[in-house]
This record gives sequence, structure tokens and C-alpha cells, in this order.
Amino acid sequence: MGKWFEEAGLEEDVVVSTRIRVARNLKDYKFPQMMNIEESEKVTQEVLNAMKSLAHNGNYKFIRISNLEPLDRRIFIEEHLISPGLIQRPDQSSFLLREDENITIMINEEDHLRIQVLLSGLNFEEGWNLCNEIDDFLEDTLNFAFHEEFGYLTSCPTNVGTGLRASAMVHVPSLVITGYINSLVQGLNKIGLAVRGIHGEGTKAIGNLYQISNQATLGEEEEEIIEKLKNVIYQIINKERDVRNNLIGSRKKEIEDKVFRSLGILKYSRLMTSREAMAHLSNVRLGKEMGIINDIDYNKITKLMVQIQPASIQKGIDKELTKGERDARRASLIRELI
Amino acid sequence: MGKWFEEAGLEEDVVVSTRIRVARNLKDYKFPQMMNIEESEKVTQEVLNAMKSLAHNGNYKFIRISNLEPLDRRIFIEEHLISPGLIQRPDQSSFLLREDENITIMINEEDHLRIQVLLSGLNFEEGWNLCNEIDDFLEDTLNFAFHEEFGYLTSCPTNVGTGLRASAMVHVPSLVITGYINSLVQGLNKIGLAVRGIHGEGTKAIGNLYQISNQATLGEEEEEIIEKLKNVIYQIINKERDVRNNLIGSRKKEIEDKVFRSLGILKYSRLMTSREAMAHLSNVRLGKEMGIINDIDYNKITKLMVQIQPASIQKGIDKELTKGERDARRASLIRELI
Repeated sequence: MGKWFEEAGLEEDVVVSTRIRVARNLKDYKFPQMMNIEESEKVTQEVLNAMKSLAHNGNYKFIRISNLEPLDRRIFIEEHLISPGLIQRPDQSSFLLREDENITIMINEEDHLRIQVLLSGLNFEEGWNLCNEIDDFLEDTLNFAFHEEFGYLTSCPTNVGTGLRASAMVHVPSLVITGYINSLVQGLNKIGLAVRGIHGEGTKAIGNLYQISNQATLGEEEEEIIEKLKNVIYQIINKERDVRNNLIGSRKKEIEDKVFRSLGILKYSRLMTSREAMAHLSNVRLGKEMGIINDIDYNKITKLMVQIQPASIQKGIDKELTKGERDARRASLIRELI
Repeated sequence: MGKWFEEAGLEEDVVVSTRIRVARNLKDYKFPQMMNIEESEKVTQEVLNAMKSLAHNGNYKFIRISNLEPLDRRIFIEEHLISPGLIQRPDQSSFLLREDENITIMINEEDHLRIQVLLSGLNFEEGWNLCNEIDDFLEDTLNFAFHEEFGYLTSCPTNVGTGLRASAMVHVPSLVITGYINSLVQGLNKIGLAVRGIHGEGTKAIGNLYQISNQATLGEEEEEIIEKLKNVIYQIINKERDVRNNLIGSRKKEIEDKVFRSLGILKYSRLMTSREAMAHLSNVRLGKEMGIINDIDYNKITKLMVQIQPASIQKGIDKELTKGERDARRASLIRELI
């Protein structure tokens, strides 16, 4: 089975991935937090029934959280295929995953339905089209909670309206090196965009990766939201590329040293935390972005950034690894793959 | 021409080099600080005449400091072949260097004569024998300043007596990692031994290298001084080896990580200061000492430690390099040689 992060993507020198998700709820049910197990099972069955005839859209695997080992739950989160919120009530939550892993339909997360499309690189058009198609299709069968004035009703008021959240994960090492990132984040917040770390709300930026998304879901059409975000992302892409060009002109040796040191450390270390690995992988990506290193692909770096996360590192090992053992295994995996 | 640091040596897993030097002065001359150029030239000629018949001891090259470019003077110092004191009065000072570079006879340093023997590894016997042989030979011809009660007279009172300073350069990373080095230095000072960095008096320890030497030159026979120092060096060797064994038992992964990271950084960096290079080379040496890295010889590491010093880095370049250019050239040289 392919993975979203194994594909090449557009504008991949800056944009790692694009994500679109809509939140929907069924009219005749309480929100997931209020439901008992029977009710949540009814919602699940309604969604599964509605999905049955969506076969033309690709094959989906249905997975109940309760059927997953805790480790596998965390791996799905590290791969960004499900949200951390989905595993909060394992007995009620489940998801459908399209076999290319670009589409996840989460059932009984914070809302009854969360349709997520995740694509490599910058691709709001395809992301939105896919998401919209599934949404329209499901709406033919399911009775979504919708208010004439407010739009789609959601568990959390911040999602009411379109229920849409669009985001791009950008890698902006040059904006971080030069400090531009701070004023950028302030500016984005002012125009109603959120800037987060790689694991969404409340997480810190690591590896110079920032997830930029719309905050508002009310009062704007989906296409407007996406168009506005897309324009901002292109501004960020251009700014990052400009600053890279300046840096390669003015601080070439220093940047080369930073890039190659990180490569050397990744190739030789015997112990490494995920945070340190992310920092070095970010520098290697910067090397690729600046043409300093050429024999590595962006998606290989993205894949490594996923594979070195704590749960993924534990995968395939029978016993629970200690932190030291994970750090050793991580270093060993990186040496093997890079 | 071979170099002392290209030879393998005894106990080389701890001892980098052994140095013996005696200070001598000619009876009928002022000490060098007090001499004018004519007088210093007379001393030089007396020594050269006396040395003429020493051909059986090997071929010597005669070099006047004034004939050396400033850069080459500093390189001889970095190679430990002459002392920093020898270049203080370039018009008066010179030296004879045996072609194997194990013996330097410095003329008009702080004393009229400084006979130095420098050998790879631990080798006080050969060091003392060579030094003593040259001293005896010169004494047949030259009239050394000698006092019945005090012994050989020298410019600085700390050298009066035997005029002998014996030292060993030890690499004791394990004693540094575990902090044993601090009590060791205190203990050595108490029994009248000096502990210094790699460039002698007043220099700081870098690269976990310590030069241990006698302080006293008065009231003890040469052989006693050397025997006492040798016993202490063996204690240090044994202690360092014990601690290494403990470390490899208790902190294997951590030490391996430290060693390989340094190797990776040395193999990949594009900019490196000499201080940083010394630290990483020390870690690589530790790797060799602990059997973690096997495909590198001790003398290759020692040679690199010399070659990466600031003056040696400038060698062969027409223009004066900036610090940044030296750091780039150093990194490049290391990548090429390691």
C-alpha cells in the first residue's frame, strides 16, 4: 500500500503536504462526546452503509480503534492519517482509509464525520475536489445537521459553517534562520490564519515545519477560504525561495557546513532523539532545497521524518523499548535508510 | 623526511609522545637575553663546531630562525620541534634538527643550548639515552656553566641542577569524562609534577591531551627524575585503561555515539576551528583506544592533530587566509585525510 508521503508533490521544495478536512454531523444523533456505545455504533453503521456505493472512488479499509493495538493507533497519528482526537474514545471511534492513504473518513472523532484528504506537496485543488466529492456523495444518503443561517453544525463552534479546515505543511528553514518567521506568524494570525507545529493544535514547530490553516469557517465559501489560503502559501513559498537565494549568496559556506554536518551526524550517530533527528533531517532537506545535496528525494526525507517518530520506531518490536533503546534503534534506522 | 608523529610508539593507546630536554649554557658567555648579536653568533658557531663530529648520530639540518618565514616558525612550534621561546629573538636563535626529526638542538633560546629528544609513544629510556649521548658529546668540546654545589647553571632558576625536563603527553579522555582528571592533577602537583596543555607552560588542555613533566631539577639525579616520572605515567596509563574498561561496560552506547558522531562530523563538515577539530579527533582516538574504530592508526590521528593547527593549515597558500578560510581549508583537509 502506498503512502501519501511516498509521492512527489508540487512545490515540494517548500510544501510538504496539503490537507483538507470537513467536519459533518448526523442530524438525529447527539455529538460523539454525549453518545453511549450503542448510539455511536448506529452512527458508524449509517456511515458504512452510505460509503458502500462509493467503491468507484477507490477501495477503503474499515478500522475500529478498539481493534488496533495502542502502538498502531499512535503510528496512524504519526503518519497524519488520523487525528489524536480519534483515539480518545476507542470503543466508539473508527475510520475508513482509502488504500492510497490519501483519504481518511474518521467516524466519531469530535464530530460524527471528519473527511480528510492528505496529499503530498501543494495541491489544494485536488484536495478540495476529493473532499467535496465524498462530502456530496455522503450527503445524498446521510442527513447532515445543517442550519440555514450558520451552515453545518459541529461539536466545537469554531468549525460551524463550512466545517472546513484547509492547511499546508511548509518547510521554511530560511525564514527560521533569518528570523523572518516571527513576523510572518504574527501577520498570518492577524489575517485569521493559524500556524502550528507538525502535530496540529498546541504542538510546537520542530524541524522548521509549520502547518498553516484557516481559523474561520463561518461567513466564507469553501472556495474563498481555500483560495485565500493558497495565495498566502504562495507568498510564503516565494519568500522562502528568495531568502534561500540570499543565504546561498551571502552565507554559502556556513549553510553548507550546517547541511553536511547534519548529514554526517545522521549517517554516523548511534543514539538519537526524534527531536534531534527532525532538526538534522530539516537541515538535509534544506541542503536539497538549496541544491547542496542532490542525491536524496524530498519524499524520502518526509518518509524518514515520519518513520523516526516514537511509535513508528517501536513498530515490529515485541517488547516495549526504553527511551535509550528507541534512540539507538532510531539512529540505526536512519543510518540504514539515509 | 620522517616525522616523530608518523612513527608508532609504545603504550600509544595512552601516551602520544615522550620528550626529554636538557638546558645547558656556555661558561664564558652571558645568558641569551643579555647578549648582543655578535655574542650570540659566537655561541652559535661554538655549538656548530662542536656538533661537526657528531655525524655518526645522524644528519642534522641547521636552521636560523631569521631565515624562516614567520609561518614556518609557527609550523615548527605546532610540530613541537622547537619551543615558542626560540622565535622570540629571531636574529640570535637557530636550531639543529636531526633528519628523523626526533632530535632538536636549540641555540640561544632561554639558554644557550636546549637539547630536545621527542619520540612517539612512551620511551623515556631511548629519550634519555639519546639526550644524554648528545649532552656528553658536546660537553667534551664545550665548556658548560657548572657549579659544584648547584649543578648546571641556567637562565631560569627552575632549571638549575640537572637542567632536565622530561615529559609525556598523555591522552586521557576517560579520566576527563569521569572527572578523575581533577584529583589526578592535584595529586601530581603535590608530588612536584606539572600538568600542562599541548603547547607547554600556560596552555590549556585541549583534545583531552595533558603534558606531564617534572618541576624539580635540583637535588635529584637525572635517572631518579625520569624513573619517578615514568612510574607516575604508568599509573596514569593503568588508571585510564581501567576507566575505559568500566566505561565500555557501563556506557557503551553513549561512548560509541560520541565517537561515531565525531567521526561523522569530521568526515562531513565544511567549516571547523582547530579547537573543535581537536575535540573530535580526541573522540576518534578514544574510539580507537576502546576498539570501537579499528581502521585508523594512532599516528594518523596525531599527525592530523598537528596538521590542523592554524599555521600548518596556512602552509602552501600564498595569501594570508582569513579565519573563515582557514576553517574551510581545515575541514576540507580533514575530509580528505580521515
